[in-house]
Amino acid sequence: MSTTDQQHRPDADHLARVRAAVSDGAGSFVERLTAWLRIPSISGDPAHHPDVRRSAEHLVDALRAAGFPTAEVWETSGLPAVFAHWPSADPDAPTVVVYGHHDVQPVTPRELWRTDPFEPVVDGDRLVGRGSADDKGQVLFHLLGLDAHLAATGRTSPAVNLKLVVEGEEESGSPHFAELLRAHRDELACDVVVVSDTGMWSRDTPTVCVGMRGMTDCQVDLRGPSGDVHSGSFGGAVPNPLTELARLLGRMHDDDLHVTIDGFYDGVLELSDDERALIGKLPYDESAWLANARSTAPRGETGYSTLERVWVRPTAEVNGMWGGYQGEGHKTIVPAEAHAKVSFRLVAGQEPGDIQAKFESWVGRQVPEGVEWSVHWYGPGVRPCLTPLDHPALGSVIRAMSTAFGSEVLHTREGGSGPEADLQDVLEAPVVYLGVSLPDDGWHAPNEKVEIPFLLKGAEAAALLWDDLARTLPRTP
Amino acid sequence: MSTTDQQHRPDADHLARVRAAVSDGAGSFVERLTAWLRIPSISGDPAHHPDVRRSAEHLVDALRAAGFPTAEVWETSGLPAVFAHWPSADPDAPTVVVYGHHDVQPVTPRELWRTDPFEPVVDGDRLVGRGSADDKGQVLFHLLGLDAHLAATGRTSPAVNLKLVVEGEEESGSPHFAELLRAHRDELACDVVVVSDTGMWSRDTPTVCVGMRGMTDCQVDLRGPSGDVHSGSFGGAVPNPLTELARLLGRMHDDDLHVTIDGFYDGVLELSDDERALIGKLPYDESAWLANARSTAPRGETGYSTLERVWVRPTAEVNGMWGGYQGEGHKTIVPAEAHAKVSFRLVAGQEPGDIQAKFESWVGRQVPEGVEWSVHWYGPGVRPCLTPLDHPALGSVIRAMSTAFGSEVLHTREGGSGPEADLQDVLEAPVVYLGVSLPDDGWHAPNEKVEIPFLLKGAEAAALLWDDLARTLPRTP
Repeated sequence: MSTTDQQHRPDADHLARVRAAVSDGAGSFVERLTAWLRIPSISGDPAHHPDVRRSAEHLVDALRAAGFPTAEVWETSGLPAVFAHWPSADPDAPTVVVYGHHDVQPVTPRELWRTDPFEPVVDGDRLVGRGSADDKGQVLFHLLGLDAHLAATGRTSPAVNLKLVVEGEEESGSPHFAELLRAHRDELACDVVVVSDTGMWSRDTPTVCVGMRGMTDCQVDLRGPSGDVHSGSFGGAVPNPLTELARLLGRMHDDDLHVTIDGFYDGVLELSDDERALIGKLPYDESAWLANARSTAPRGETGYSTLERVWVRPTAEVNGMWGGYQGEGHKTIVPAEAHAKVSFRLVAGQEPGDIQAKFESWVGRQVPEGVEWSVHWYGPGVRPCLTPLDHPALGSVIRAMSTAFGSEVLHTREGGSGPEADLQDVLEAPVVYLGVSLPDDGWHAPNEKVEIPFLLKGAEAAALLWDDLARTLPRTP
Repeated sequence: MSTTDQQHRPDADHLARVRAAVSDGAGSFVERLTAWLRIPSISGDPAHHPDVRRSAEHLVDALRAAGFPTAEVWETSGLPAVFAHWPSADPDAPTVVVYGHHDVQPVTPRELWRTDPFEPVVDGDRLVGRGSADDKGQVLFHLLGLDAHLAATGRTSPAVNLKLVVEGEEESGSPHFAELLRAHRDELACDVVVVSDTGMWSRDTPTVCVGMRGMTDCQVDLRGPSGDVHSGSFGGAVPNPLTELARLLGRMHDDDLHVTIDGFYDGVLELSDDERALIGKLPYDESAWLANARSTAPRGETGYSTLERVWVRPTAEVNGMWGGYQGEGHKTIVPAEAHAKVSFRLVAGQEPGDIQAKFESWVGRQVPEGVEWSVHWYGPGVRPCLTPLDHPALGSVIRAMSTAFGSEVLHTREGGSGPEADLQDVLEAPVVYLGVSLPDDGWHAPNEKVEIPFLLKGAEAAALLWDDLARTLPRTP
């Protein structure tokens, strides 16, 4: 631990006061969370859209009760979000936006739930119910954390200007979130975004996520003969679009499974030795990872570990492919058309638009005469999202987590990304992650649960984080 | 023309007698054909199966009326065939089996027919109606040919033992034909099979077909994760069966589009210089061929012409492929499964079973750990069928055609094959082809027609062929 780190550590009295406040508030926190979890705010089911609105209104009431001077429902073209703001009394304090979401996943298959998904049950340390971990529990620990922050410091307003934006469509792909951010860019202006919608490596290994891959994806269409033709009469002498598509996509990786698209890796930020060492410290269990991946063997780019492959390396995947005869039995044709869905996971240094152009030009150079091709992109893509590893806010989060958990905090990343890239890009602020969910919490699965002691640690870390950020971030001039 | 050729030519008087007899019989031949064409013997439509039986019975009556001592319906597990036999008075005469079929294609799209498909219309030299060219006209010219053969030679029985087998399910893929041949192997014992179910290169270029490609085809299944998994979380680190299938099938051809399956070309009979020269003599029009192939550019194995690619080279084609997400929009998964239909066209020297084994072992060597694979073959496959180019029967057919048409007869082949391979394999006899249909006769299409003068040339060639074969083939000891 560096001297700087030690300077930023809270003193023992302060930590004791935070812990006492969290402990005092724990009972009512669980009650408040339970009440909120009873609202089945399933954004993916139109029948539950009124519940998503009720959930937003419920959260606004809770934020007001917690003391937020501003707490309101923000309408979108879809389902409502919630915004809250508690300015710091310090006019030069930095500004933080906390992100979470108040909608939840559907509960199918319902029959696999051992309790009513919307009648939360406390079972020892566990609180079982849909949304307990993803994400209501992790939104609500911020209210307890803020209570503790104020109680421990004797303040009447937070050390940072604290804003919350809590989305109502995250489980439906955040279709209106970027639009919402752009519409409220000024109100959401901030120095850093704290995302509380992720988890930790394990109960014994607290971690912070430091990056998520971006993504861009498309449909590729190849057209050969103007209709299916008989493979006996014409096979071997006319281009077969399915064979050509297989040739194209089959050559998208070399024997080391590097992507062969020209310039694909241009600018890719290689893992630093420090970062690689941090990832290497994680107690990784390949057989457990494979079970999760429903696979029997790993396969990926030579020279990288499984975690590096999913976290820090860009990929090209065939997500779907079809053409020609697909029914029972056989039909010996040269098909007229062939199609594929292809997606690219992107990492820091890559831009979706640039990868789109490179893929198209790579396709165009390979498709032979007699085959027409087109590539249709599904939107502009999602930029990769990497916490700037030298940003002081990352140090603040790691210190807060480390103090709360009393152990070293390692780095993780995630393979995919959601609204985080929108936050980073629209708000032009670095994104850091404060999440305390466990891998077995059952996100999107039956019997989702959260462990109350971990939510309390999350509250503790948040209480410490606002002080640390206020000390660490450059002060607003 | 060699001396041998000249020795086998009919003298001018004999030819004149054949032509006179054909000419005399032409009127009643057209009447007999018209009556048969009125029976809508569509084997592909169960509603017309009684008509297929009527057609068989009609043909039996016609054969008896033509003088065949034996003419009978042969039952199969499906639709009936017809058998006829007229033994030669010469006890040592060779035996010939003529093959044709009496079932016809459906008439859809009916609205594109300008006349009733089953009410034949004579329009100048043309006779329009379903089955006129494929294949009733080419079966029936043998009756006129036999009349002329007998009239010109003054015989009361043919110079060869003449057998006919006329199938009723050819347009449905001859599903019971091999079984029928095996059941009647003794009655069908012969020295040569004459297939009259093909056409010529063009009206100005009479040709004989000398070979058809064989075929074997399969479904390939690859299985990766036990269910679809998220490409963000797992992509790049687990095997993707669609990517692997694309890699597999994309590598099935090298850059010269040679098939890369180990041993695939073992034993393949290369085209002789003579044969290549004969194919080169055909007045081939690439743009017309491409229009037929519904394609805008040729593509195939380096070093071979388009005709060589479809006639004399084996191929590997992807007929269908599917896996993963195929709907509207996108779904970024690593799919659990990938499937393809793959077919191989085979040429002389290749055996379907051997190619099956070679493909499977090639697949097995490439599929990586973590992916399960299986290959399901659709039956044992069809052997290629090549007329032995030095067999005397081929010379007989070429002389008979050349005399009838008064011009050089070139070679063609066909890219696919039907019951010919069964005839060759079950009867263990060489197959030669005597067909006079034209490329624009509209097989399987609306407004199918045949040109009567060409059917009469077919009869003439048949009349000459029996004499020639009797002189040319080794006599039965």
